[in-house]
Amino acid sequence: MRTIGFAGLGAMGAPMARNLAGRGFAVRGYDIRPAAAAAVAAAGGVAAATVAEAAQGADALILMVVNIDQAEQVLFAEGGLDALPPGAVVILSATCPPGAVKALAQRVMASGRRFLDSPVSGGVAGATTASLTIMAAGDRATFAAVKPVLEALGTKIFHVGEQPGQGATVKTVNQLLCGVHLAVAAEALSLAAKVGVDANVMLDVLRGSSAASWMLNDRGPRMLETEPEITSAVDIFVKDLGIVLEAGREMRVALPLAAVAHQLFLATSGRGDGAVDDSQVIRSYHAINGTSPPE
Amino acid sequence: MRTIGFAGLGAMGAPMARNLAGRGFAVRGYDIRPAAAAAVAAAGGVAAATVAEAAQGADALILMVVNIDQAEQVLFAEGGLDALPPGAVVILSATCPPGAVKALAQRVMASGRRFLDSPVSGGVAGATTASLTIMAAGDRATFAAVKPVLEALGTKIFHVGEQPGQGATVKTVNQLLCGVHLAVAAEALSLAAKVGVDANVMLDVLRGSSAASWMLNDRGPRMLETEPEITSAVDIFVKDLGIVLEAGREMRVALPLAAVAHQLFLATSGRGDGAVDDSQVIRSYHAINGTSPPE
Repeated sequence: MRTIGFAGLGAMGAPMARNLAGRGFAVRGYDIRPAAAAAVAAAGGVAAATVAEAAQGADALILMVVNIDQAEQVLFAEGGLDALPPGAVVILSATCPPGAVKALAQRVMASGRRFLDSPVSGGVAGATTASLTIMAAGDRATFAAVKPVLEALGTKIFHVGEQPGQGATVKTVNQLLCGVHLAVAAEALSLAAKVGVDANVMLDVLRGSSAASWMLNDRGPRMLETEPEITSAVDIFVKDLGIVLEAGREMRVALPLAAVAHQLFLATSGRGDGAVDDSQVIRSYHAINGTSPPE
Repeated sequence: MRTIGFAGLGAMGAPMARNLAGRGFAVRGYDIRPAAAAAVAAAGGVAAATVAEAAQGADALILMVVNIDQAEQVLFAEGGLDALPPGAVVILSATCPPGAVKALAQRVMASGRRFLDSPVSGGVAGATTASLTIMAAGDRATFAAVKPVLEALGTKIFHVGEQPGQGATVKTVNQLLCGVHLAVAAEALSLAAKVGVDANVMLDVLRGSSAASWMLNDRGPRMLETEPEITSAVDIFVKDLGIVLEAGREMRVALPLAAVAHQLFLATSGRGDGAVDDSQVIRSYHAINGTSPPE
C-alpha cells in the first residue's frame, strides 16, 4: 500500500488526505471542486482532475464523499472502479446505510477489486489530528493489508466484523447515540432555561456528574451561544439519523428515541437552520417551549 | 455544625451517615428499620428510635428519605421539625419535584428553622466513597454554614442558586439526562443485537468515541448480562423521570425524549421487573424488538 486515490476532499476528507501525504503515501486527490484537489498537491500529493485519474494505478481508493449516491456515482458512473487495478481496495469511509454498503461491496468485489467498509468517527478535529476512530469490516486479509493506511488516519482502529455492512452498522449505532445525546442535551438546557437556573452553573454540574456525555461536553457550551462556530451542521444529523431509522426499517427494529430526536433536527432544518452548527437543534426546543438562550 | 440528625438510612443514607461519623460529626441516625439505625451506632454515631430523637438538639437534620411524601411525614407528622432547635437547618437530599421542595422549604422557614435544598448525584458508589456531587440551593449564609457537612459527603459541592427548589431543578435536569442516556444505550444495543454485530466489540468502539456517555460506560456492560448485580433499580427511574415530567408539566415545558424514555422504564416495571438493575430497561427493547442478550 503506497499509492492511494482519495475522492471527496471536504471538511473531513481534506485533512485525511493531508495526513496520508504527510506520512509518506503517494496521494492522488480528487474532488468536484478543483481547488480542493489543488490543496492536496500543495500538501505533497497530486491533484487528480477526475476520479479515474485518482484511481489509476492506486493500491486503494478511499471514498470520503457525502453519501452512498456519491459513492456509486464516482465508482460506477465516473469510471473510478474501472480505473482501479484488479486486487486494489475500495475503502468506503462515508457514513452510509448498512444495506446499501453491503450491496455496493458485492458490485465492487464482483469486479475483482477488494472492499473495506470503513466508516470513521471523531469529526473534523479527529480528522485533522489523525485521531479518528475507525470501525472497519471486511475479510481479515484485506483489513490487514489496509491497516497501515488506517493508522495514518486514526488512533482507534477496530476490525468489527468480516462482512461489509457491519462497519456501517457500528457507525449507525454510534450516530444513533450521538444524535440522541445531542438532542437530549438541548432538551435539558431548554428546561433549565425555563426554570431560570444559570445555564453555565448547570453545565458545570452536569459535565462532572453521571449525566455527562461526550456530546454534552462538546456541544453544551455552544448551545448557550446564539451563533456558534459551525463544526458540524444540523443537516448532517438529519441525514445520519435518517440512516439510523432506515437501518431500523430494514431490520425491523423500533427505535423510538432516535425517531423523536430525528424530528427535532428535521424541524430545525425545516425552519431554515440546516446549515448552522448542530448544537442549534436547541432552537427547536426554544421554539416549542418559548425559551431562549442566556443573554 | 457538630451534631447532625440523619433520617433515611437506605443504600445511600447509610454510607453518608457513616462518613459523617467518621469525620467527627456527632450523628444521630433514624430509620424506619431499627437495624439501620443500629448500624450508625456501630459506626460511632447514636441510634435514634424516632426522628424527633434524632432532631433534638441537632444543628442540622439531613433527610435522605425516598421521596417528598416521606420528607413531609418525618418533618410534620412525626415531629422532626418541632424537635429541631430554632435556627437549625433542614437539609433535604432526597430527589424531589422542584415545586414541592419550594413549598416544603416555606413551611420549614416559617417555623424559624433554616432550609437547604441539597440533592446529590453519584449513586451508592459516590455515597460510600464520600465523592458525591451536591447541588445545593438556599441563601448564602445557610450554604456557608452547612458547607463543612457537605464536604464530608461529596467532592463536587455546587451552590446553584439562592432559592430552594433550584437544587431540585438541577437534579431534575441531571436525572432527565441520566434516564434518557440509559434508555438510548439500551436502544443502541438492541439494534446491535438485531444486526448481529458482536456486542462487546460494539461497546468497545462506542465507549471511546463521540457516542460515549457516563451511563453507557457504567451500565452498558450490565445491559449485556441477563441478571446483573443491582446498583440502582428500574423503579428509581420510573420515579425520577416521573419527577422530570412533573416539573415539565408545572413549568409548561415539553420534554419529548424524557417522555419516551419514561415509557420504557414504566413498561419494564409493568412486566414485573421494577426491582431489577436499571440496566435492564433493555428488556423493554428486547420485548418489542424480539432481540435478546448475547449468549
